Amino acid sequence: MSKPKVFEKPLGVKDYLPEAVTKLRNIESRVLACMERWGYNQIITPTLEYYDTVGVASSTEDKKLFKLLDRKGKTLVLRSELTAPIARVASSLLKEQEFPLRLSYHSNVFRSIEEEAGRDSEFYQTGVELIGDASSEADAEVVALAIASLQAAGVETFKIALGHVGFLNGLFQETLDGRTDAQLTLKEHLLSRDYVGYREAIKSLSLTPDVERELNGVLRLRGGDEICEQARMVTQHPIAQDAIRHLCEVWDVLKAYGVSEHVVIDLTMIGDFSYYTGMTFEGYAADLGFPVCSGGRYDNLLSQFGRPAPATGFALKTNRILEVTGKEQVSQKRRVLIVYDAEHRAEALQLAKDMRSDMGNAAMVVTQLIQVQNGKPVEVRRDGYQDVFQLITAE
Amino acid sequence: MSKPKVFEKPLGVKDYLPEAVTKLRNIESRVLACMERWGYNQIITPTLEYYDTVGVASSTEDKKLFKLLDRKGKTLVLRSELTAPIARVASSLLKEQEFPLRLSYHSNVFRSIEEEAGRDSEFYQTGVELIGDASSEADAEVVALAIASLQAAGVETFKIALGHVGFLNGLFQETLDGRTDAQLTLKEHLLSRDYVGYREAIKSLSLTPDVERELNGVLRLRGGDEICEQARMVTQHPIAQDAIRHLCEVWDVLKAYGVSEHVVIDLTMIGDFSYYTGMTFEGYAADLGFPVCSGGRYDNLLSQFGRPAPATGFALKTNRILEVTGKEQVSQKRRVLIVYDAEHRAEALQLAKDMRSDMGNAAMVVTQLIQVQNGKPVEVRRDGYQDVFQLITAE
Repeated sequence: MSKPKVFEKPLGVKDYLPEAVTKLRNIESRVLACMERWGYNQIITPTLEYYDTVGVASSTEDKKLFKLLDRKGKTLVLRSELTAPIARVASSLLKEQEFPLRLSYHSNVFRSIEEEAGRDSEFYQTGVELIGDASSEADAEVVALAIASLQAAGVETFKIALGHVGFLNGLFQETLDGRTDAQLTLKEHLLSRDYVGYREAIKSLSLTPDVERELNGVLRLRGGDEICEQARMVTQHPIAQDAIRHLCEVWDVLKAYGVSEHVVIDLTMIGDFSYYTGMTFEGYAADLGFPVCSGGRYDNLLSQFGRPAPATGFALKTNRILEVTGKEQVSQKRRVLIVYDAEHRAEALQLAKDMRSDMGNAAMVVTQLIQVQNGKPVEVRRDGYQDVFQLITAE
Repeated sequence: MSKPKVFEKPLGVKDYLPEAVTKLRNIESRVLACMERWGYNQIITPTLEYYDTVGVASSTEDKKLFKLLDRKGKTLVLRSELTAPIARVASSLLKEQEFPLRLSYHSNVFRSIEEEAGRDSEFYQTGVELIGDASSEADAEVVALAIASLQAAGVETFKIALGHVGFLNGLFQETLDGRTDAQLTLKEHLLSRDYVGYREAIKSLSLTPDVERELNGVLRLRGGDEICEQARMVTQHPIAQDAIRHLCEVWDVLKAYGVSEHVVIDLTMIGDFSYYTGMTFEGYAADLGFPVCSGGRYDNLLSQFGRPAPATGFALKTNRILEVTGKEQVSQKRRVLIVYDAEHRAEALQLAKDMRSDMGNAAMVVTQLIQVQNGKPVEVRRDGYQDVFQLITAE
């Protein structure tokens, strides 16, 4: 096998040069500060977890987990998301802490990528978990915080699409009872937003015209809070009715937060349906084809770690946000160069110290001794500096 | 093989709970800000690198590298340090940028651990690289910045031990010419600071009394700048003489920085001697048996990535610093709870919004709806909050 070239990196990973780091760090610190103002405390979990615990419990597809073996032959994973690790911590180190727990994180996560070009195998997520509160108030809190976080990150125009896995579950139980394959096919068409495929799949199922109409009608259930009313009419199945009632309550709380202008109801939206148990949501920025955040309620996860509890949360897709906020100007520090000869060394270094202290984080102060070659001072590079101070003995 | 328990983590990794995160993040942001004031721009490199490039070039022992295979069967490593990845970036993405390059980082790094109890397999390093400057001025700059960084991190009492690999190399070439095994044995005793073993090894080498005395004399070469004078007398070997001359110059610059009170010269100190090519240094905090930072000059690394250049730098051992600064009080945010009933929801959420905006990062504001059960409001948990505001209709 050929060796990689010296400058090569593994597939799907990248270097962040100073300008990108400044932007990423700005987003990170502003969003984490916002989450903290809402009462969320930050935690850090390890990069490596056991496959059999956190790996299996995570919402990531098994084939996308980055697996490796430890020295004893146990399978490890590079964390693929933070919700499962945080559930582990809530059930172990934090098990004496009463609910509700409000926790935040900013972390790199990993995906084992196939040979698809342009997919990242390492990227950042910034998010929260609200554990131990089953109420619609809690769901609305994380949606409202997602909105505040996107604003803190500098995303100006976006919409949150709000859905609930219970609506489709109820509707499908009513209309396709026992036909789990058909249910799965329809859900997968909705998950990939393939509405043509969804309609065709319905046609192929040999249903009564009424049921066909009912299932096709789902595609129209996107809009403002009038959708709640419409959805209530579609099916009387109790699971679907409960879902709609809960979603209406979330909507009411979001109105009280004064943020409903950012929210649309979308009952065709279906997150990871094996994982989420209630409300789900995704955030879309203007002019961007993929979500910048996603979240929802996952009431079955914590029990896998021995401390059953309802929970809800979201993660910002931080790298996507980096792209959206690309045009935003990164505030430049003032770059100062102090050039000196050996005679003025102490004076120059003292000046640098004073300037670093006086100007704080507003400036970068670089010092450079002038070398003498053949009796002449060697000119130093000065481009890129706004101020150059020269402390040398005049010739 | 038995499955891990649900709450188990892999060996050598840990969770950082909110209090530890606050401390770690404080150190991180203060040190990075300090480095930036000195003109160092932060970069981020990937967690995964090719073994054949960065893995082999790194200063980490091969058996301590955390290795895994990618899908094509190429060996990857979890980065074990940042100097080799940054050398890769300096030689590729930044190859058009003129020297000197000043780069900083804060990053987790990985070590494959044996069954030793208490060793970390994942921990943090915060450091800088100054690439493209061979001068003693550059070496002094990174030592002075290491001192400023330790102070920024809150380490109050510490000493920097300053050495140079050239002194022992010259001395050993003079006294043990061609006896590479003997040289290696002596270096390893010094590396592990086993001075008894060093003396015994010298005895076993059947040397002349003069040479024995000369080699044993090395152990006394620790102290202030008088050591430079003493060392100059020990051996006339040109490599050793060059080393001492360079070290004296570094010392002079450190005096000009006004930081020589923090520095001792220690010619018995020997960093990774296959890696460093000139000055080396380690920082020791009071009452702590292990270094809190280490660094030195590595002029051979960059050529392995196709852009030969002298370079010098250091890394803080951030987790060690977390232990040293353990007693320091983490400034607590004011915790505010706003309790409300459904009637006062909009008012309560508006109050929360105003407080988050007015108090900024000084407060955490949590909102909690009072639930009603059997016609009675359910009391909410109020411990841990300094302020509780209650917006409910009086009974």
